[in-house]
Amino acid sequence: MGVDIGGTNTVFGIVDARGQVLASDSIKTLKHANFDDYIEELHAGMQRLIKANDAEGKIQGIGIGAPNANYYTGEIQNPPNLPWGPIIPLAEKLSKIFGGLPVAVTNDANAAALGEMTYGAARGMKDFIMITLGTGVGSGIVVNGQLVYGHDGFAGELGHLVVKRNNGRVCGCGRTGCLEAYCSATGVARTAREFLEISQEPSSLRNLQIEDITSKDVYDAAVAGDKLAKEIFDYTGKILGEALADMVAFSSPQAIILFGGLAKSGDLLLRPLKENFEKSLFPIFRGKTKIILSELKESDAAVLGASALGWEAKYRYEVPSFDHQLTDHTLPSADSNK
Amino acid sequence: MGVDIGGTNTVFGIVDARGQVLASDSIKTLKHANFDDYIEELHAGMQRLIKANDAEGKIQGIGIGAPNANYYTGEIQNPPNLPWGPIIPLAEKLSKIFGGLPVAVTNDANAAALGEMTYGAARGMKDFIMITLGTGVGSGIVVNGQLVYGHDGFAGELGHLVVKRNNGRVCGCGRTGCLEAYCSATGVARTAREFLEISQEPSSLRNLQIEDITSKDVYDAAVAGDKLAKEIFDYTGKILGEALADMVAFSSPQAIILFGGLAKSGDLLLRPLKENFEKSLFPIFRGKTKIILSELKESDAAVLGASALGWEAKYRYEVPSFDHQLTDHTLPSADSNK
Repeated sequence: MGVDIGGTNTVFGIVDARGQVLASDSIKTLKHANFDDYIEELHAGMQRLIKANDAEGKIQGIGIGAPNANYYTGEIQNPPNLPWGPIIPLAEKLSKIFGGLPVAVTNDANAAALGEMTYGAARGMKDFIMITLGTGVGSGIVVNGQLVYGHDGFAGELGHLVVKRNNGRVCGCGRTGCLEAYCSATGVARTAREFLEISQEPSSLRNLQIEDITSKDVYDAAVAGDKLAKEIFDYTGKILGEALADMVAFSSPQAIILFGGLAKSGDLLLRPLKENFEKSLFPIFRGKTKIILSELKESDAAVLGASALGWEAKYRYEVPSFDHQLTDHTLPSADSNK
Repeated sequence: MGVDIGGTNTVFGIVDARGQVLASDSIKTLKHANFDDYIEELHAGMQRLIKANDAEGKIQGIGIGAPNANYYTGEIQNPPNLPWGPIIPLAEKLSKIFGGLPVAVTNDANAAALGEMTYGAARGMKDFIMITLGTGVGSGIVVNGQLVYGHDGFAGELGHLVVKRNNGRVCGCGRTGCLEAYCSATGVARTAREFLEISQEPSSLRNLQIEDITSKDVYDAAVAGDKLAKEIFDYTGKILGEALADMVAFSSPQAIILFGGLAKSGDLLLRPLKENFEKSLFPIFRGKTKIILSELKESDAAVLGASALGWEAKYRYEVPSFDHQLTDHTLPSADSNK
């Protein structure tokens, strides 16, 4: 099963070995202030789905994508938007309530990369980078066929490469000039506001309340031929293309896979992106790395990606046996501290 | 054995399992216009060393560090400073002349990273980045205990991350604004010339011919208390520290290891470097990644690093047997094209 814990909904589904999402359902993430209550509701929802689909005894493992999830510890650590404390023992609690089923966790962009490698555009690739272009910019990096977790479990924060060293925009992370502040959906909306203020160029975007403009508004205007809106995409594509070229200098991937709302802007984004990407590459890498779009359906991708992690989940909560309890807890022997 | 092919000298040595360089020697790299002649002289020199040290029959493999060497193909590809053609089948030729001994090749910065992991400051680390600060800036990246080669064998060109997007210095690679153009020995000398021209500040560096100033001159002046020379190191350390912080966002290494002449500038470089590094890190990474200096002796490092690759070398030239020749070449059968 795959579980995707988002700031609003927690979506979960049963996935077969060929990558079919057989059934899925969701609960509200923030309904419970207490983590144990949340886990109980999640467990109940998952069990209902398992029963309704005759999958009892057939679940091989559970993979979870969640913000700030640490693959090594199975915990969510210091999540900015969840109320359950700084350290949330997600894998342990879910494995325990499922009687010791293997559980693995990672962040949502890493899960997306695993999904793409197992079921999508990266099938058969051993070196690629997944970039998710949503409200923020996330990334999952695969090297030698393995996800890059780093020494602490948090590698792959490519949305926070600094693309503008001087006078860069303030980013949600508290620093300035991050890729995410320019090439996310919110970044595009910020660019629109900047461009509208700086230039005198006529634009249909001027008919909107400037503070309410979204990346979707910019997209619609550009598709309708609005010159300023197109320039906003040119600007976004240039910055993203240059940043992707720096990523290639790191791991020389076979492909960079784009995922998320903004990735669906088509040539408006891809033309300036590819042009600046190719031009910005270190010569030895030119013409080698493909920029491609995700092949996963957006509605399925999060659950699929998380489930891909589930196949390789190893962590199991050790259900204590009666003997075990007796020896270790109930009747400590004289040498129990050895 | 380890072999380091430099633009001037080719150094080779016998290394034992504990990382002792038992003996070493060298030949001139550019003496022969023909690659086969070069390989013959290298072979003769290595054989002499083997005989003189009673190592006949004891060599387990040969590792080679060379510019533009491709780990996957065993070739040097399009080397800028070697005269032997665009594709040089280094591993094949050396393995052949040594009767099928396993040979592996990689570039010198990757070899340095392997040396550091096997014998130096990165012993026991599974995730680290090696940065070589010499005439240029090279890098070797280790993730999950493995060198990152990328899909084409050329990953890890972190000297060519773009650190200045606008009005950046022209780099040897033909692009502008690369890290190498600022934080190599030549980069420091360029900074000195720029600073001397732009500022009016008195400096002992003004006693030198401006075109002849080296990074060593800047170092000596800074050690003697020259204010402008110290500012040059502050500038260099700031740019390097910011770039290293971006590298952490990629692979979240346990340590970044600095190697090469400039790394020996001590606190002149390290103080501004560490200060700006820590400040520039994405919050989740702060206080976790150590900046440390190489523990390998510079004179031994290249041979040691290359030899570390030799232990895991797998490529062997298949010495053709008589039967094999008959079947495949001398007497092609009717279906030899199938």
